[in-house]
Amino acid sequence: MSEVDGPLYIAVCGSATDEEPACSNAEEVGRLLAREGAILVCGGLTGVMEAACRGARSEGGLTVGLLPSEDRADANAYVDVAIPLGLGEVRNALLVRACDAVIALTGEFGTLSEIGFALKIGKPVIGLDTWQLSNRGGRVTAIVEAGSPADAVRKALVAGSA
Amino acid sequence: MSEVDGPLYIAVCGSATDEEPACSNAEEVGRLLAREGAILVCGGLTGVMEAACRGARSEGGLTVGLLPSEDRADANAYVDVAIPLGLGEVRNALLVRACDAVIALTGEFGTLSEIGFALKIGKPVIGLDTWQLSNRGGRVTAIVEAGSPADAVRKALVAGSA
Amino acid sequence: MSEVDGPLYIAVCGSATDEEPACSNAEEVGRLLAREGAILVCGGLTGVMEAACRGARSEGGLTVGLLPSEDRADANAYVDVAIPLGLGEVRNALLVRACDAVIALTGEFGTLSEIGFALKIGKPVIGLDTWQLSNRGGRVTAIVEAGSPADAVRKALVAGSA
Amino acid sequence: MSEVDGPLYIAVCGSATDEEPACSNAEEVGRLLAREGAILVCGGLTGVMEAACRGARSEGGLTVGLLPSEDRADANAYVDVAIPLGLGEVRNALLVRACDAVIALTGEFGTLSEIGFALKIGKPVIGLDTWQLSNRGGRVTAIVEAGSPADAVRKALVAGSA
Repeated sequence: MSEVDGPLYIAVCGSATDEEPACSNAEEVGRLLAREGAILVCGGLTGVMEAACRGARSEGGLTVGLLPSEDRADANAYVDVAIPLGLGEVRNALLVRACDAVIALTGEFGTLSEIGFALKIGKPVIGLDTWQLSNRGGRVTAIVEAGSPADAVRKALVAGSA
Repeated sequence: MSEVDGPLYIAVCGSATDEEPACSNAEEVGRLLAREGAILVCGGLTGVMEAACRGARSEGGLTVGLLPSEDRADANAYVDVAIPLGLGEVRNALLVRACDAVIALTGEFGTLSEIGFALKIGKPVIGLDTWQLSNRGGRVTAIVEAGSPADAVRKALVAGSA
Repeated sequence: MSEVDGPLYIAVCGSATDEEPACSNAEEVGRLLAREGAILVCGGLTGVMEAACRGARSEGGLTVGLLPSEDRADANAYVDVAIPLGLGEVRNALLVRACDAVIALTGEFGTLSEIGFALKIGKPVIGLDTWQLSNRGGRVTAIVEAGSPADAVRKALVAGSA
Repeated sequence: MSEVDGPLYIAVCGSATDEEPACSNAEEVGRLLAREGAILVCGGLTGVMEAACRGARSEGGLTVGLLPSEDRADANAYVDVAIPLGLGEVRNALLVRACDAVIALTGEFGTLSEIGFALKIGKPVIGLDTWQLSNRGGRVTAIVEAGSPADAVRKALVAGSA
């Protein structure tokens, strides 16, 4: 890809619930991504997704929501471009394809599917308090760990530009 | 759906070639959609898609391209939000799902697939110099015919708001 | 593709309703495909799809249903391999991808979407009492017309082997 | 779902490489699934997928391959029904949807994405020498561990019937 001339697209993944500190982290990630001119891509729903969009919106950033349902009204109020794909959780794979890097904030099994898909197709994954992976007893360190929202954004922008 | 509070999303469909008058019509459709505050959704490539995006951009409108490839760089220069779905022509079906109404400008078999999918799921289709349909010898008038770009946009906005 | 060593996969498309003569034609098409050793692929539901599967099953043929829902129980009783894709009407595009040729029996807008996808990606379409296409006032003869179920099957096997 | 009257569909997931003991385990899993009358669903390619299909075929079982490419010829020689989806790795999500339970044999990131999707949509996952999951430092035991191919098949059939 040659995204040299365009903005970076960064996916923010996490639970649809109001879990903390993931939502506070997501809002800060959204703010920082917007300040850097990145486009925020997410699943468009509640919880971590909504917090990230709210943060981005507060800094004038552009937010994109790829929705599982066919109903655009399912998007949270801070999504600028809502795409109702109607594919259910298959949209997790498309979300990963659409971005240059993934930031995973805690999250549940949906986030795990996004991590797996991203690693499979070679998209960088930055994790903050999220899944850790082992296979056959050995730790797999494919997720780049971040220590804070700012650290996650910095690492995502670098990895996504590579 | 309750899009009362949000913008309309209008899909513009047509060939990736520089055929006329489809491209001139697309550019005018893009301009008019932007003036009305609608978000333009299209396949993101060349020809009618690019002309529509160029028109919308010239009036400050927002343009979304759902790309068949996995490569965002395939988007034309006037796409604001480029989503590389990597699904090939399956994206035609998702383009239709993402919009409130379809404007078909001449077009080839890809446009025909979009028309068929839109009619199947109940999305209004406005046609300008495009496909005409018959089944078992009888004309099927499911495509709303428009006489000009302005007429097409007017009809799409009305039908898409219903 | 090099299907020289394997069976042909032929898609049978049409309405989910019990319309005639489409269903009788579908059953005969299914029988004939099975006798020729072709695998029948369809949308897996009722009407033309069920009739085609019933015909194929009666001759010991193998039937595959690509279902729009996530629920395998939606398949008709004559589907041997039921794949619940959960993609809604997007499965129409995948059905076309999965086959070597399409036989369209009358049908409605879903069938039209399948015809459009097939022609777009270069899969042969054989029609029996189905859609006729015009564009900008000129007849488009991309659908190969058949005069009977036997003629449709013969033409599909030839075109699908090319 | 009411699969009471039909066969179980069991997905076998793992690497496309010839890694051991995953491939030997896959072949045994395939044999045992076929003996139990289950339909084997897999990604249709080489490595673990091919070994599983070879095992099932040797016992007269039915094998289904959901291929990432548009080319049916990419299927391994032991696939009975090859569906070229043309969706790339998105097919991992559809593979999971198509089955009643997943058996994961070691595997890499693609297998991880399948595990994530399966757990997200509530499909049971049986693992043999495969991924282990932790989140925020705590072990997540959502994958049912098996001690042998026979144990994996037994657990998959029980969980998939529930």
